[in-house]
Amino acid sequence: MATTAKYVYEFSEGSKDDKDLLGGKGANLAEMTKLGLPVPPGFTITTEACRNYLADGQEPAALRVQVTMALRSLEDSIGRRLGDRHDPLLVSVRSGAKFSMPGMMETVLNIGLNDASVKGLAEASGDERFAWDSYRRLLQMYGKTVLDIDGELFAAELDRAKADAGVTVDTGLDVAHLKALVETFKGIVREQSGDEFPQHPREQLDQAIRAVFDSWNTERARLYRRRERIPNDLGTAVNICTMVFGNLGDTSGTGVAFTRDPATGQPGAYGDYLQNAQGEDVVAGIRNTLSLSELERIDESSYRELIRVMRRLETHYRDLCDIEFTIERGKLWMLQTRVGKRTAAAAFRIATHLVDEQLITLDEALARVNGKQLAQLMFPQFDQSAEQNLLTTGMAASPGAAVGKAVFDSATAEQWAARGEDVVLVRKETNPDDLAGMIAAVGILTARGGKTSHAAVVARGMGKTCVCGAEELDVDAAARIMRVGGTELAEGELISIDGSTGQVFAGSVPVVPSPAVTYLEQGLAAALEGADEDTADLVRSLDRLLVHADVTRRLAIRTNADTAQDALRARHLGAQGIGLTRTEHMFLGERRVLIERVILADKPADREAALDALLPMQRQDFVEILEAMDDLPVTIRLLDPPLHEFLPDRTELSVRVAVARAKGEEPAAEDVRLLAAVERLHESNPMLGLRGVRLGLTVPGLFALQVRAIAEAVVARIQAGGTPKAEIMVPLVGSVMELYLVRDEADAILAEVGAAAGLELDIPIGTMVELPRAALTSHRIAEAAQFISFGTNDLTQTTWGFSRDDVEAAFFAAYLEKGVFTISPFETLDADGVGRLVRIATDEAKATAPGIKLGICGEHGGDPESIHFFHDVGLDYVSCSPFRVPVARLEAGRAALGAPAER
Amino acid sequence: MATTAKYVYEFSEGSKDDKDLLGGKGANLAEMTKLGLPVPPGFTITTEACRNYLADGQEPAALRVQVTMALRSLEDSIGRRLGDRHDPLLVSVRSGAKFSMPGMMETVLNIGLNDASVKGLAEASGDERFAWDSYRRLLQMYGKTVLDIDGELFAAELDRAKADAGVTVDTGLDVAHLKALVETFKGIVREQSGDEFPQHPREQLDQAIRAVFDSWNTERARLYRRRERIPNDLGTAVNICTMVFGNLGDTSGTGVAFTRDPATGQPGAYGDYLQNAQGEDVVAGIRNTLSLSELERIDESSYRELIRVMRRLETHYRDLCDIEFTIERGKLWMLQTRVGKRTAAAAFRIATHLVDEQLITLDEALARVNGKQLAQLMFPQFDQSAEQNLLTTGMAASPGAAVGKAVFDSATAEQWAARGEDVVLVRKETNPDDLAGMIAAVGILTARGGKTSHAAVVARGMGKTCVCGAEELDVDAAARIMRVGGTELAEGELISIDGSTGQVFAGSVPVVPSPAVTYLEQGLAAALEGADEDTADLVRSLDRLLVHADVTRRLAIRTNADTAQDALRARHLGAQGIGLTRTEHMFLGERRVLIERVILADKPADREAALDALLPMQRQDFVEILEAMDDLPVTIRLLDPPLHEFLPDRTELSVRVAVARAKGEEPAAEDVRLLAAVERLHESNPMLGLRGVRLGLTVPGLFALQVRAIAEAVVARIQAGGTPKAEIMVPLVGSVMELYLVRDEADAILAEVGAAAGLELDIPIGTMVELPRAALTSHRIAEAAQFISFGTNDLTQTTWGFSRDDVEAAFFAAYLEKGVFTISPFETLDADGVGRLVRIATDEAKATAPGIKLGICGEHGGDPESIHFFHDVGLDYVSCSPFRVPVARLEAGRAALGAPAER
Repeated sequence: MATTAKYVYEFSEGSKDDKDLLGGKGANLAEMTKLGLPVPPGFTITTEACRNYLADGQEPAALRVQVTMALRSLEDSIGRRLGDRHDPLLVSVRSGAKFSMPGMMETVLNIGLNDASVKGLAEASGDERFAWDSYRRLLQMYGKTVLDIDGELFAAELDRAKADAGVTVDTGLDVAHLKALVETFKGIVREQSGDEFPQHPREQLDQAIRAVFDSWNTERARLYRRRERIPNDLGTAVNICTMVFGNLGDTSGTGVAFTRDPATGQPGAYGDYLQNAQGEDVVAGIRNTLSLSELERIDESSYRELIRVMRRLETHYRDLCDIEFTIERGKLWMLQTRVGKRTAAAAFRIATHLVDEQLITLDEALARVNGKQLAQLMFPQFDQSAEQNLLTTGMAASPGAAVGKAVFDSATAEQWAARGEDVVLVRKETNPDDLAGMIAAVGILTARGGKTSHAAVVARGMGKTCVCGAEELDVDAAARIMRVGGTELAEGELISIDGSTGQVFAGSVPVVPSPAVTYLEQGLAAALEGADEDTADLVRSLDRLLVHADVTRRLAIRTNADTAQDALRARHLGAQGIGLTRTEHMFLGERRVLIERVILADKPADREAALDALLPMQRQDFVEILEAMDDLPVTIRLLDPPLHEFLPDRTELSVRVAVARAKGEEPAAEDVRLLAAVERLHESNPMLGLRGVRLGLTVPGLFALQVRAIAEAVVARIQAGGTPKAEIMVPLVGSVMELYLVRDEADAILAEVGAAAGLELDIPIGTMVELPRAALTSHRIAEAAQFISFGTNDLTQTTWGFSRDDVEAAFFAAYLEKGVFTISPFETLDADGVGRLVRIATDEAKATAPGIKLGICGEHGGDPESIHFFHDVGLDYVSCSPFRVPVARLEAGRAALGAPAER
Repeated sequence: MATTAKYVYEFSEGSKDDKDLLGGKGANLAEMTKLGLPVPPGFTITTEACRNYLADGQEPAALRVQVTMALRSLEDSIGRRLGDRHDPLLVSVRSGAKFSMPGMMETVLNIGLNDASVKGLAEASGDERFAWDSYRRLLQMYGKTVLDIDGELFAAELDRAKADAGVTVDTGLDVAHLKALVETFKGIVREQSGDEFPQHPREQLDQAIRAVFDSWNTERARLYRRRERIPNDLGTAVNICTMVFGNLGDTSGTGVAFTRDPATGQPGAYGDYLQNAQGEDVVAGIRNTLSLSELERIDESSYRELIRVMRRLETHYRDLCDIEFTIERGKLWMLQTRVGKRTAAAAFRIATHLVDEQLITLDEALARVNGKQLAQLMFPQFDQSAEQNLLTTGMAASPGAAVGKAVFDSATAEQWAARGEDVVLVRKETNPDDLAGMIAAVGILTARGGKTSHAAVVARGMGKTCVCGAEELDVDAAARIMRVGGTELAEGELISIDGSTGQVFAGSVPVVPSPAVTYLEQGLAAALEGADEDTADLVRSLDRLLVHADVTRRLAIRTNADTAQDALRARHLGAQGIGLTRTEHMFLGERRVLIERVILADKPADREAALDALLPMQRQDFVEILEAMDDLPVTIRLLDPPLHEFLPDRTELSVRVAVARAKGEEPAAEDVRLLAAVERLHESNPMLGLRGVRLGLTVPGLFALQVRAIAEAVVARIQAGGTPKAEIMVPLVGSVMELYLVRDEADAILAEVGAAAGLELDIPIGTMVELPRAALTSHRIAEAAQFISFGTNDLTQTTWGFSRDDVEAAFFAAYLEKGVFTISPFETLDADGVGRLVRIATDEAKATAPGIKLGICGEHGGDPESIHFFHDVGLDYVSCSPFRVPVARLEAGRAALGAPAER
């Protein structure tokens, strides 16, 4: 195979659909070539060549031959030869994998220059300075990226040369300076690599290609792939492209541009241009760039050509594109294009604009936006029109806008928060000891660590605003001071952090409500009223795409709500019912003593008295929720949580009793009694103890009370003219027998309450699948359950064998860092493990009871990627917190289109 | 279908293989008929008829016709007609399901008698008293079982009649008494049922048949089936059999017999006979029975016939049979036979005797015994030759022989045990409050509750001797006294309980070691030395069957052993290696402070110092175990248990610190420091927290220490001339990534230690599958694991979502009672849930790595039913506690034969 494979494709041979073989960059270069755009000629070495190289430890024999052929063809078409001593052809070598991947070798420019051809280039270009500057650049990039020499060594010499010459920018260096620098750089290469810089152009080329191949397996690249679950065996392509020069004086230059504004989404090209420069200068930010309108002023013809190309690209790609280009003595060359990144608001605006421009359909528009972007738009935002004092920008780790006093340790955060102050916890990095402070703070800011650092993971878990890895930040916790650039802030000074952009501001930036939320909660008219045109444009985009998602999706969207207020709010946000009403919150506060009595009762009469007292309260709870969700289904879960949540804390009680005794006092009789009871019922692992249906089958009358309260609430609502649709959900079932036992009792109560009211009550009884055993036996469970809802929080806990509370702070950050997780399995459903159980259970429950209603009410119900999974598996609905309902609507629509979920 | 089905089979039409259709009793009656044995003619109504009756609520139309045909055929062959007024044919009606099932209607005799035919019977038999006695019996049985009238009403009248007549036994009643009693009984029937006793013989028959059908669905029968997992839709057969009479004077009688001694297994018929009686009298125990040798004396001809029949049956069934028979005026009739129950010792002896008699093969003999019986033989036993004062017999709930002082509450048990006394906790019944007392006691005795009561379940879980449901026992905890019959025992008096037989003795009965254990531990010669012939016979049986099991089985048997002593003991008992060496016990005692330091270290140097101190100790642990198991595999599990097991108790520390402060003292600095650390590391659910591989990946150097100790121990053993075969097992893996990370570190250490010693170390690294996720992703895990062992204890915990410690006492008894479990899933593997995961993981691991070694090291490794499951699934070995190794050997052999496991 190796002898017959085609390893090399000229740009004119490929297309944008060949990303697997040619990588993203190569495929787009081929596409532009095919479109007749001005791409410098070149060729791409396939990912297959890379794979063979990595497998065998050497280039496939055929590759050298095919490179020679392609190079000859290139030389013939250009009329110059690589590294020729007269008017040499130079090329660039760039890596280009299917997925953009940090840590891989990027670019070597000016391949083909050597001690002889530099003179030819000087002659041919008529610009000696340009030739030596190009040679200097080759030595520097080749040394750093191909020979792996520390780049600082070259940069320091460049700085020294500028200082010696008394200039501040590199363009100030003259030919003599540059020639000297070339000698210095050659010395660095000799010293660091032990070899002379290769003078043979083909050797330069071959080494550069090999360096690209090798960079696939650097530790950083491997780690990145492990984390992103990119297969290790894809390999990278290599693009060899004729050099064009932006550093041939002021009629030359290089730039990047977007076909419309990536920040707002508004039409009109947008970009930066740097005169007399090569590509790496723009990124390095050595000189100030010009805007495109300034380019129009300097070089109108190139500008017009650029606009024409961009329009062609946008029409062709039917989306916002970003491009890299170079102008060589007034001639435009396209070096790269791809579909461009954009902000959340821009994504929505562009998608609907393209529909209006009749470039894409509404289905396509829906696929172009995602729930993560919608969620960003729903967070409160800093007022863009207010005065802002930007200190620095870190990573956007957990969205939101937080304003508070900077504090530098966890204890201070707790103390200040306890007295009612908003604080932002600022740390170099966080560890499990900072947990209390993170809970107390309104936001978290760290100087170190990425999106999977402890701070980021835990903050996202808490839903708390977080900016991490703000590397310019210097936190001196001992001195209670933070420094950014020249600014110094003391503990207690106000700062504002934007978890959606990573921005950090000094002082208090005003927060404005999101127009998206206004629209979602109050409707289109309210959101448009008094809105500026940009906002109105956004709101209309949201409306069109959400409405389209609603008509497109198959999944119904319900909400998790325990109160009438939450239920109403979710209903406004588009919820089509309640998938989970937890009843445990209804037993806190004043009612706690009653439920405690139910559990601890010595005599049945005591228990019954407490149950009787609870009945009217529970009934009223349900009446209110059923009223708020009238005519929509309301799934009420019977009492689920671990026993100890209703009992006093064992350690506290022990201390109280022991302290009283130590003081020679008699401890309170109630304390002694309670301590004995708590000791008796103490569980080492309450999550794995007497809870859910086990508690219901063990404490007489408990579930009966709740079932009766639900039945009576339904009767009351019907009598009040409502249309209540209650459903009863039995938690923590592991065996169908448990469900049969509960149903025996519950069916009797429903019949009795119904008969007393003269009504036929239709209250389905179903169960949660939240234990692996329930999933594995769901063909049986479906015999007794009238509906099934997956409790994916608990199912994740038991499938992985860890409890979220105990482990998220303790080792999740380490696990994300090491690549065991790519994302917390409590955020996005673990498809391989937990998801496999969901799939087994869904298939087998449907086999037993084809019409059975299946839903999910864990937190994954609001997570985009998980929603796609639930759609694919074939559930009927997802249920999520009220605030996530719009996200779920959007993603359910996208899932129905088969659009990919974005991480 | 209902019109063409054959619902009725004459006895001559069936065979013993028709149990599904004819029930156990009917199939065996047919078999005996086929053998030409003297079975009274009759016929069987099929289970299918019952199923149709239960489905439709009425008898299938064809059934009545077929019963008529069969009855006519019966009448013709006998020459009498059912209930004829002259010389009537009478029949018995008995239920007979596939499985013997308490709670179902058993028998109605003498169907066909009425006011007219009773006279015919008197005339034909020439015995008026017999006829009226038979009528009295019919009324009594029919009233009780068919009409569901309280049996006490009849019994009370019978007693009154005897008292009035001044006689003590029912045979003392004369014709006049019996006639009066018949009238009285008719009155009871009229009063209780609201109807006259049916005089029409066919109506009696039809009602009795229907009553048998209906009894399939009594609550007791349903509950029994639910518990025993007997399908609800099998239905029962009905046997209609010509009456023969044991109550026709002293030349008649009825009896039960065994073809050899069911207690010892020794050859020779064995049974009880009651003159002038019908079947129910034997069971009721109204008069003393005679032995078979006495029957030989009274009626030698019938005796000889009986012996001939029994020999025929044993030859035919090739096993011990038990039978019911009746002699009617010197003529023997067989009423029932089945393969008989026997003691454990008898089972082993009979199996090998039958081999010697060339009736069965060794394979068959192995299938005839089981691990439960072997386990019983291995428990210490009370000395049968010692004087015994039997108080009563309850249910054998948890085997063993326990002697101790009787105590009547948990607190006393704890106090007395704390001062070194052996106590037996005696309670009416136990509940979770008794847990501490149960732990403190050497044995537990209860008056109430069956084998699934709280006492029984918890005692079995603890491996503690227990007799439950000793109903004659009256426990007066307040008065600190127990009474049995006339005997009264005060608290502190010695009692002895036998958990294998249910016997309860007053005083201390001497305990003797089991000859089975002597044989297993010291070999055949040692066990035979000085043994009596019975014991020698048993020991030889054990030896033959265990040796045969060893050559037959495919599963290897390993043991779970943490010390060299345990390893050696298990090796003597036949273990072929260690499947699980837990290392956590090696960190207790004096080393605890070191591991605490490793976990809590503030500075790396502190941690490393503690690790360095642990290394030589760990190495020595492993050297000793590897020496004890030289040349056999030793699987060492890296540290697994929850964090808090190595840390001081939070509540205790809190109390100590608070009490010191309350007294105005400064708490110990160490306490304050530890409390802070313990608070920081506190986990609400340690079982779901930082443990196993998570701890290994979080605490630097911990796993490295253990791996190094193992590698160095292997080197030391090789250098000492041994053949160490260590294997390293990584616990609690949920993702293959965790395993890769540990292997990266471990492989490097193994290579380093090997290189330093100049040896190529072959130490496979594998993992436990003890989380559902590991099972569900084992196709990935098998890429990185060199072997896999199922940790079914933890896998059961996570699959069901309950922790054994927390729930066994809290609700297992209730769940067994309600039929959610038939047996604790921690005793016998839950095949539907946990077992399904084991099967998935086994299949998929093999698909990835066909040769991978698979085992199991949970407690299920020693459970017979579970061993059969593991054999069927295709594992390579099971590992169990040393004491269970012989059981596992036997059951693995049986599993290889396809013999069923017995519950």
